[in-house]
Amino acid sequence: MDGGSFRQPAPDDVSVVEAETTQSLIRVAVAFRTSVSGGAGAGGAGSRGSGSGGTGAGKPGSIGPFHFRIFEVALADGAAARISKTVAVATSRDRAIASPAAAAVAVLARAGGDIDALLTAHQDAWRHELHPFLVDIEAPVQVRLVLNLHIFHLLQTLTRHTAELDAGVTARGLHGEGYRGHVFWDELFVLPLLTTRTPDVARSLIEYRWRRLPAARHAAAVQGFSGAQFPWQSGSDGTEETPKWLYNDRSGRWVKDHSHMQLHSGLAVAFNVWQYFQATSDKAWLLRKGAELVIDVARFFASRAGFSQDTGRYHIRGVVGPDEYHTGYPGSTDPGLDDNAYTNAMAAWVCLRAAEITGIFHGNELAGLMERLHITDEEAAGWEQVGKAMFIPFHTDGVISQFAGYEDLEELDWERYRESYDSIERLDLILEAEGDQTNRYKLAKQADVLMLPYLLGHEGVIALLQELGYVFTLDLLNRTIEYYLARTAHGSTLSRVAHASVLAALDADRAWDSFREALDADLDDTQHGTTRTGIHLGAMAGSIDVIQRSFAGLRLSGDALVFAPNLPTGLRSVAFKVRYRGHYLNVELKDGRMRIASAAGDAEPISVRVNGRKTALAAGQVRTFRLPTQVEGPAAS
Amino acid sequence: MDGGSFRQPAPDDVSVVEAETTQSLIRVAVAFRTSVSGGAGAGGAGSRGSGSGGTGAGKPGSIGPFHFRIFEVALADGAAARISKTVAVATSRDRAIASPAAAAVAVLARAGGDIDALLTAHQDAWRHELHPFLVDIEAPVQVRLVLNLHIFHLLQTLTRHTAELDAGVTARGLHGEGYRGHVFWDELFVLPLLTTRTPDVARSLIEYRWRRLPAARHAAAVQGFSGAQFPWQSGSDGTEETPKWLYNDRSGRWVKDHSHMQLHSGLAVAFNVWQYFQATSDKAWLLRKGAELVIDVARFFASRAGFSQDTGRYHIRGVVGPDEYHTGYPGSTDPGLDDNAYTNAMAAWVCLRAAEITGIFHGNELAGLMERLHITDEEAAGWEQVGKAMFIPFHTDGVISQFAGYEDLEELDWERYRESYDSIERLDLILEAEGDQTNRYKLAKQADVLMLPYLLGHEGVIALLQELGYVFTLDLLNRTIEYYLARTAHGSTLSRVAHASVLAALDADRAWDSFREALDADLDDTQHGTTRTGIHLGAMAGSIDVIQRSFAGLRLSGDALVFAPNLPTGLRSVAFKVRYRGHYLNVELKDGRMRIASAAGDAEPISVRVNGRKTALAAGQVRTFRLPTQVEGPAAS
Repeated sequence: MDGGSFRQPAPDDVSVVEAETTQSLIRVAVAFRTSVSGGAGAGGAGSRGSGSGGTGAGKPGSIGPFHFRIFEVALADGAAARISKTVAVATSRDRAIASPAAAAVAVLARAGGDIDALLTAHQDAWRHELHPFLVDIEAPVQVRLVLNLHIFHLLQTLTRHTAELDAGVTARGLHGEGYRGHVFWDELFVLPLLTTRTPDVARSLIEYRWRRLPAARHAAAVQGFSGAQFPWQSGSDGTEETPKWLYNDRSGRWVKDHSHMQLHSGLAVAFNVWQYFQATSDKAWLLRKGAELVIDVARFFASRAGFSQDTGRYHIRGVVGPDEYHTGYPGSTDPGLDDNAYTNAMAAWVCLRAAEITGIFHGNELAGLMERLHITDEEAAGWEQVGKAMFIPFHTDGVISQFAGYEDLEELDWERYRESYDSIERLDLILEAEGDQTNRYKLAKQADVLMLPYLLGHEGVIALLQELGYVFTLDLLNRTIEYYLARTAHGSTLSRVAHASVLAALDADRAWDSFREALDADLDDTQHGTTRTGIHLGAMAGSIDVIQRSFAGLRLSGDALVFAPNLPTGLRSVAFKVRYRGHYLNVELKDGRMRIASAAGDAEPISVRVNGRKTALAAGQVRTFRLPTQVEGPAAS
Repeated sequence: MDGGSFRQPAPDDVSVVEAETTQSLIRVAVAFRTSVSGGAGAGGAGSRGSGSGGTGAGKPGSIGPFHFRIFEVALADGAAARISKTVAVATSRDRAIASPAAAAVAVLARAGGDIDALLTAHQDAWRHELHPFLVDIEAPVQVRLVLNLHIFHLLQTLTRHTAELDAGVTARGLHGEGYRGHVFWDELFVLPLLTTRTPDVARSLIEYRWRRLPAARHAAAVQGFSGAQFPWQSGSDGTEETPKWLYNDRSGRWVKDHSHMQLHSGLAVAFNVWQYFQATSDKAWLLRKGAELVIDVARFFASRAGFSQDTGRYHIRGVVGPDEYHTGYPGSTDPGLDDNAYTNAMAAWVCLRAAEITGIFHGNELAGLMERLHITDEEAAGWEQVGKAMFIPFHTDGVISQFAGYEDLEELDWERYRESYDSIERLDLILEAEGDQTNRYKLAKQADVLMLPYLLGHEGVIALLQELGYVFTLDLLNRTIEYYLARTAHGSTLSRVAHASVLAALDADRAWDSFREALDADLDDTQHGTTRTGIHLGAMAGSIDVIQRSFAGLRLSGDALVFAPNLPTGLRSVAFKVRYRGHYLNVELKDGRMRIASAAGDAEPISVRVNGRKTALAAGQVRTFRLPTQVEGPAAS
């Protein structure tokens, strides 16, 4: 930051520092007041003067980036002295301000000088924020503590306060400079929690993307495609900021980074729009903003996919999937893979949702949407056509292929690498240092295909593939899950979250182990030094979400709130809160029973489905369900 | 503005100027591209160079506040040359930007170079914005043209584009520097139109106030009151910016300006919240934001009002009402009046609405609101108590007094002043120059008491006063209206709008005359030179609103959309559109019939009441009502 100028008068006991960021020229002002009371001397403490210094910009009236104030306090044994510092921060991006410095001074004045009152208000505010997020579990104390830590860090980054800002879901929260604040697809792991607790906050985070639609549309247009392509690493203005090179300190070489070829960020955005809509049935918002995101993402993939006469299907070629260890075919000099199953399946999903939207609205509302986005009936029909004819690659035995040709890759000698290296999470760097490359092997940095059951649920994946005309069974899905579980290095903290989640229906105790590994990511810095550049927000939120998504088996499905609980042995009871279509629900799993209580209110009754049993739930009602004592495979529904 | 620095690379054919406002330090960047085609010479026109100049800030790399580029175009008879200039503007308050200069360059790049395509997109955008606002009337062409002019100016200032900004309803729109962009109560005249057409825009303008609640709360607190006091002239950070002095160029003297003693801005904010809620039944928004405004404004007035043992009622002393020609009692050195009828009645109204809110929500929602705003049951009961026991002053004959003691003032010799001066709209300046003062006389700058029937309707005023325990009749209200109509100088452009409106039920043809005078305000600059500092946005919007509010008699009343049409002779037919609780309505008055058509859609049926006849209206339905051929007084309902 450059030192900025200070032009606003402030009271004598207040110091103000204003600075400006070097690139985006955002001004940040900090106003503070220090008071000292107690101490031994007569009259307590006294201020001896103040000053400022540093590398000011040299403008008339400018000050340096730091201020100081000296207090002299006579101390004596047993006489307590209290030093209180009240700080107010404002930036030039804040609304309802005259200038950052004036705003910081005003906020400090409004805060007043009663430190105890401020502390009480602070505690009240935290209690208010925490309340909907608290998860009550009977489990080892370490699990409970780490869950609370994750909730705390989530809410330090994303609350109703951020909802008023133009803030996105940064990969490292607000806790460090890792990835320079860029926005990836991590909101896919964060928003499920917010959507079901503080839907307003979820909506505002989606609107962060909506405001970047012009940049995403431009990114698609310059490549000759329709709709909107959201970047892999999104900068503050929504443009692609993925570095082109990566330094491998094992080999001392700079390696080409092709991760900008990941097209799936937009799929995450559209998925979150749909989840928000399912959770709130907020049609007005869908019409105004959400639909624009779903439709423009669908448009991009519909134009990006190419029809093949040979297969009679649409293919998406030359991409990288969520698994960054596969960026091209072995021996090929061109980066990119064909038909990444995750990308293709979710592209099909988003095309079908875009087509569905045109059936949700009628009359003037539909006409207005069609006119605003220049949609023709023909185009809308095309989305359904492309969606239903999307190509999905399979192994010869019916397991979903991560991408076309994956089956032809070599098996890795996992034993050798596990023996030779302390950690094999960054196999890409290990192999590159050995003169080899991950592209050659059947391995993955993180769950890629497994993201499909993570997002859509087991039934959802089967239903989608059937809609696409493929014969696919629960048995094949389970085999697919086992296949990739055995070949994943967990080079991303998000990977264990997805694994824990998809495992729960298959084997709750194995899922519990994976969940506990996910809990350790930042606390034990399992990514070897990455936590110092900020927490992994997606993994933290995702681990809390595993409790509801996997162990309670919560899913938003069409017009129903679905539960398919799978409690592992280590988790004797779970209780948490859910907001759903105006209802305030308390969900409790304990002693072989699931209890869902809706608080009194005037929301319309909702549908709840527990292990396939569907029932209506009105505000003020309580329903209790007996759970099978032994869970054998995923519950039917 | 100071010249700012430019640090962003731009294409060769693009010039960028970035500057900074002097006080609030807002950066504004303008990027532009000029192209010349045609002309006589071979190859058309050529650029001969470019440059920049002005008073740059002297920083390294800085440029002055202007750029130029020279083109040489050989012209010949009959050979057309075309000069196209594309301009993009961005400011540091914009969201989703890296920096203003980078954003302006990006917007220009996205706009492309096809001027004809840009023009078509521009026309489409205007058509889209205009569509819900167009009013189709059979009336003299001049009336139709001016109405369209007003719609155009309204939409230049307030559309869905401003809805994404932190923008308020400025008194002079964006058209001039009058009042320095301060925000008054004009939204009371502007929002009725937006609330019934583009409710999202209305809501965002109310949220402009919501973001300034901390400043309004602070303003109340420093005076020892509860809740929030919104200022008369609101600066960008929501603090009071009313000048303390006014220059009278008739007398050459500076005169004390007491208009900051107008407390009623907050009442306008709360009224607009309630109107938005009536029009949309958007309970989620009311709970989250709207209720905070209504409740904190009610709190302010409940604490500002003082109970008198003598009258057994609450009084609000030491204020100025909407009529700025009365700022104190004659002979008194202290400014301020007691019990301004408009302020007291609307303060009672807002206290009753705050109490009503606690009955709208239940369970968790109510508990959350009570906790968030620290409301006790006792406090909520107090709002109802203060509201119902508010004092309203009356003349001895039962006409509402503008304030306590108004009846004791002298009558003005209106004839003498009408004969002596071209215009008597600024009687305050005329009398001051004569060594006299408006405080002595029964006169008004603008409709003050008449704002009550303007906002609440005739039935609404009678119902409110009855709820306060006063015996008040339609006859007394009509006499009140005539009383003040005869004593108003129309020193504010808003005054004629209110007059036209309240007259319609009494005498549609007189209302039509007042309406036509309101239409001339800016076109003929009837305020003598004030239009050059910006249009009068409230009067422009208010004049359009007169068509629906007064001649069609539209009112949002509890759970019904109410019409009590009063067509003047000069207005043979009216057709306009209304958005109401998800319905898209076409309203048409013609040939003694009123036709209300709701477009197909899936909104819940609504209640419509026309001249007292209540009916349900479902989406897709049409209802026709026969109107009385001769309107005799306001329709019963």
